[in-house]
Parts: sequence; C-alpha cells; structure tokens
Amino acid sequence: MKEELTVVKIGGNVIDEESTLKEFISVFSQLPGKKLLVHGGGKIATKIATSLGAETRMINGRRITDDKMIDVVVMVYGGLINKKIVSLLSKEKEKSMGLTGADGNCILAEKRPIVDGVDYGWVGDIKAVDAGFFRALLEAGIIPVLCALTHDGQGHLLNTNADTIAGEVAVALSPSYNVALSYCFEWRGVLKDVDDPNSLIKRIDAKLYEKLKADGIVSAGMIPKLDNAFAAIKRGVAKVNILNLESFPYLNDRNYEGYTKLH
Amino acid sequence: MKEELTVVKIGGNVIDEESTLKEFISVFSQLPGKKLLVHGGGKIATKIATSLGAETRMINGRRITDDKMIDVVVMVYGGLINKKIVSLLSKEKEKSMGLTGADGNCILAEKRPIVDGVDYGWVGDIKAVDAGFFRALLEAGIIPVLCALTHDGQGHLLNTNADTIAGEVAVALSPSYNVALSYCFEWRGVLKDVDDPNSLIKRIDAKLYEKLKADGIVSAGMIPKLDNAFAAIKRGVAKVNILNLESFPYLNDRNYEGYTKLH
Repeated sequence: MKEELTVVKIGGNVIDEESTLKEFISVFSQLPGKKLLVHGGGKIATKIATSLGAETRMINGRRITDDKMIDVVVMVYGGLINKKIVSLLSKEKEKSMGLTGADGNCILAEKRPIVDGVDYGWVGDIKAVDAGFFRALLEAGIIPVLCALTHDGQGHLLNTNADTIAGEVAVALSPSYNVALSYCFEWRGVLKDVDDPNSLIKRIDAKLYEKLKADGIVSAGMIPKLDNAFAAIKRGVAKVNILNLESFPYLNDRNYEGYTKLH
Repeated sequence: MKEELTVVKIGGNVIDEESTLKEFISVFSQLPGKKLLVHGGGKIATKIATSLGAETRMINGRRITDDKMIDVVVMVYGGLINKKIVSLLSKEKEKSMGLTGADGNCILAEKRPIVDGVDYGWVGDIKAVDAGFFRALLEAGIIPVLCALTHDGQGHLLNTNADTIAGEVAVALSPSYNVALSYCFEWRGVLKDVDDPNSLIKRIDAKLYEKLKADGIVSAGMIPKLDNAFAAIKRGVAKVNILNLESFPYLNDRNYEGYTKLH
C-alpha cells in the first residue's frame, strides 16, 4: 500500500486576495500526510507588468512572454507569490520549499517553438520531472511549493502552465505515492450548465467524460483541464478533484459531494 | 580533516550587469568542491521600486523596508536575481537551489526593533541558521543560493544584510567543513588609501586589524565588513577573502597576491 500524497493546484482566485490566500494556507496546512502545492500567477502579474511597462498579450488564454514579461513573471510567480506562500506555511509550523523548475533542475522544459505563426516567447513545454528530487523533499517532511516556471537547462526560465506542472508532477510521483490531484479554481466543479451552480456533476469517469464531450455538455474552457486530468489518471494518478475554495476544507471527507471527483 | 566549503558573497557590482553576472557564474561553477553562494540586491531593486512607486530611503547604508518595499525586494532578490543565478548555474551543469531564509525555515530572524527612533521596517536580525538543512543540500551535490531575505516564522519575510547572512551561514557550517568565506565587491581588497588601488594590504590578522583601526587606516565603510569577518574567524571560519571580480578566478591560487586574505 503506497502512502498518500496530496497535490493541490491553486489559481488566481485563491492568490489575488491576501486574506483568501491566508485562509487557504491555513486549511491546506491542516491536511494530513504528505503534500505538494502548485500555484499560478493571477492578476498581480498583470498589474505589476503594467506598472513596469510590459504589455500583457494573451493568445488562447496563454500569456505571450517576451523578454520584459519573463522578468515580471519570475519576480511575481517565483518571488512575490511563491515566497509569501512559503512564509505563510512556516507560520503554520510547516516546512516548505519554494521552487521553480530550475531549482535542483527539478523540471526541465523546452522553449515552445513558433506554432502557426504564434511566438509565445519564453514559454516552456515540460520534458522531464525529477521525481527523486521531490521524493527527497517529501521524505524530509518538506512541502514543495512550485510556481509556474520551468527552465531549459540553457540559462533561461520558462513560463509554464501551472495546471500542466501539477499534472506532470502528480504523474511522476505516482509510482511512489497514491496521488490525489486537486485543482482548486473558481467554480464548484464541472457543471452541466455554467450559469447554474446546482448543475454540478459529482463523479466522472473516462467513459462518462467521452459521452459528456460528445453531447457538448462540457464547456470549451473546461476541456483542456479535463483532458489533462484524465490523461493523468491514465498515467497512474489515483484520483483528480475539481473544486473551489469553499469545498476545500472537505477534501478528505468521503461523504461530501459538493465538488467533482474524477476517477 | 574536514572537507573544504567555499562560501561566496556577491554584491551589486556583480549583479547589476547581466554580462558580468554570467562571467562570474561561469568562474564560480569551475571552483572545485562544495560551494554556497549569497547575493545582495543591487541597483535593480531601486530601479524597480521607483517604477512601482515605492520610495527608496536609506539610513546608515541600510534600506528602509516598508510594506511596499518588502514586496519589491522579495520580487527582485528572491525572484528575479535569485532565479536568474539558479538558471545560469544549471547551464553550467551545476544543480543549485534558490533560497530565502523562509525556505525550509533555514534562517530564522527577528524583526529589528525601532532603534533611536529609526524604524527600519521589515528588516531582520538573524536568530538561527539550520546547518543541517544546508549540509543536506551540499551532501546531495546541490549549491545553496541564498538571497538577502530571512523570515520571522510568523509569516513575514525580512530584508537582511547579505554580508551578515554569508558570515552567519559560514559560521554555522564551520563545525562540518573547512570554510573559506569570500566577499566579492568593488575594490581589490582592503586598501591603505581608497584612492590608490596599489595600496592593497595582502594579509591581515586580528592583531594587525586592531592596529590598522587604531591608526585610522581602515576606511569607515570597511569597518563593519571587517568586524564581521574577524568575528566569523573567531567563531570557526577558516579564512576570509576580500576581493573583486578580477581576482575571483585566482581564488584558490595560493601564490596569487592580488586581494586581501584575512586569517
């Protein structure tokens, strides 16, 4: 029987307000057992970028990361947000380590090539996760806190989707742990009707997911997240949860049905 | 016989220009044996602070660190500079880990109280260094890269003098390693006459230092650095070097006499 590992990814809605972040960290630190946290950027990056004269341009929901913008995201993701989380965890008597993929060479990526004329700039696609590095931290009782940055091994940091980082790290650690991967975002979970929070789908397996997609019930915005989630399950992750901050305290409550469980 | 450990502190003159930083990292990575790097901030912090509307105020050469300024230094020291160094080291095939004192709770400090009516803000004085944490990284072949930030264990990051961090970490690791601590800064070393680079004092021991101070030969700006250095030697550090980037490639050359060696 493998030990449990809780991998949680948080996005802008948790990070943007300091009070919300503090509340999350307090609940997260109370989760039993081994834990790993991945965070994205949020509105702070855009705000600071504007102040520093770096223009925010998005294509397909992805940030175009030019020379100026990579410096901003390294400052905001790898500095401001990451170290704030680490210091808040220490207040909760948790030892954690703030990381980019360059630290300990734990996540190696390659710069995304220009696709269909779109140059995303300093954006990375993951090539390799060093599972042994994360295991060593976890076994030493340290919570790895990963931000949305990897590197190319050539001296360049790369902006990398935090959902993907969470999925790839969860997969890499699945031979060693029984990994539950949770995406904590705006909505209660997967909804049949995005305008109706009561239309939550409580459980989805791969077969039902294919049907929901075929019937056009899953919203376009959710498809990349769910494709990733089911790919992670196929590659060994025990389960994936999709939930919001309100449900987060019930993450380990088997009887709670307020979010979406994928298996 | 204890193993050698090279602890190097670099300041603004090495960090401010990317080409200089790259040159330094290339030479640093070629040093044999176990290594640890500490870096300060430099002009980038002041420049970014101005862009973000945070006012830079210095008292006795120390930055007043209010709520806005601590966010700036966390971004610049803990994000931009620290992660740039880590990614440049990975290019040189070195594994390193970028750290604040909050990461792994490796350096605990306390917020400096208001002294003589001067409130330095979020500035820390070091209380404890976790030598075991640094040993574990070093023994795993990882170079710790520390920026000028510690924490109070209460969820606050604290701006902390990088010279002091280098000294305290060197002292904490001296029971385990034969530590050589090098301060890489603007000048060739300790000069009898700051306007004459040829007035370098090549070797200083504690006795000579007292005499130089009594005779008014050491410049006021050098005294805190040298006081720290001799305190570190008294507390177990094997030797301290004071040098500039030009001499850095000769750090392990016993016959080279272009910088100041303290013992």
